[in-house]
Amino acid sequence: MTHPLSATIALPDWWDDAVPAEFVAESPEERMAFVIDLAERNVAAATGGPFGAAIFETGSGRLVAAGVNVVVAASMAIAHAEMVAMALAGVAVGHHDLATLGETQLVATTEPCAMCLGGVGWSGVTSLVCGARDEDARAVGFDEGAKPAEWVADLNAAGIEVTRDVMREAAAAVLVRYAESGGVIYNGRAALSNGSTR
Amino acid sequence: MTHPLSATIALPDWWDDAVPAEFVAESPEERMAFVIDLAERNVAAATGGPFGAAIFETGSGRLVAAGVNVVVAASMAIAHAEMVAMALAGVAVGHHDLATLGETQLVATTEPCAMCLGGVGWSGVTSLVCGARDEDARAVGFDEGAKPAEWVADLNAAGIEVTRDVMREAAAAVLVRYAESGGVIYNGRAALSNGSTR
Repeated sequence: MTHPLSATIALPDWWDDAVPAEFVAESPEERMAFVIDLAERNVAAATGGPFGAAIFETGSGRLVAAGVNVVVAASMAIAHAEMVAMALAGVAVGHHDLATLGETQLVATTEPCAMCLGGVGWSGVTSLVCGARDEDARAVGFDEGAKPAEWVADLNAAGIEVTRDVMREAAAAVLVRYAESGGVIYNGRAALSNGSTR
Repeated sequence: MTHPLSATIALPDWWDDAVPAEFVAESPEERMAFVIDLAERNVAAATGGPFGAAIFETGSGRLVAAGVNVVVAASMAIAHAEMVAMALAGVAVGHHDLATLGETQLVATTEPCAMCLGGVGWSGVTSLVCGARDEDARAVGFDEGAKPAEWVADLNAAGIEVTRDVMREAAAAVLVRYAESGGVIYNGRAALSNGSTR
């Protein structure tokens, strides 16, 4: 085994059928409905976990980039939906700091795990909109990791506005359907703990 | 601007000159010296920030994958050294969970930021070795993000052993040299806070 020189995060094959090249969603609810649809398609196509995320220009509602969980398909533990969206958004903009676009908003079907939460702080987005809560993910066996207890206040202190519970029930229902359909709740630390990664 | 369908994390052009295709380092100190060298090369070649990381098979010392900070070059806020190493390691192994290799060790020149720390928990590594401390990074203007106060205990609870301060002075010296040479301490949230991202 030679160590690799690059790694590519790619969206699933169904993407072009699901997402128009140019997409605009004006309200937080429209944006959430869009990412819930992505999560549902990811589950239906068995291309990854029940999580979707997207970054929009806050004012115009124009989609900058979106992602779904592709951890298993990409062989990449870090390829959570939010991380995929943030990585693709940087590529779309041609700059690591999304603040170069002005105000941008990350919309996620479930509250970000510990890793994605850290990434939100580095991405340059100025607001975060969440659907399902951590406890909805935990209820079906996913682990959110060790998040700071005051994570919403921490983001606010960094100038990032947080809106929770947008279409929470619909977002949580995708998690439940995934678990009920026998979707793998994979577990990076299965041998050592009971936590399941997402 | 059309939203992109993939994003590639690539190591800098100097990589092949620096890292043999097969590499073994048996002690934590040898492993740390290796990643400090990567961080120094990244600074010298102006290909990214002063951070290096690598994943080794704990027992054999065989290198699985390594990374440096390529945030600016890749236009990707999430492309910290540890994240690059974890992404490439998954690709090397062909599985998102490095536990498929048995015991693996992530060696990082500086204690992981909030994002990378979360990623460590999902990667499947079973131990973490750190060089410089958070405060060494902060001393030159980098921000580590909102980490849980008891992050070492959190990792331990997840079955991940943590060793700190391995070659701390040498690792911290790279941070200082980078800052003194006028290296950009880029700042994702510059408009809204005084924190600098890494």
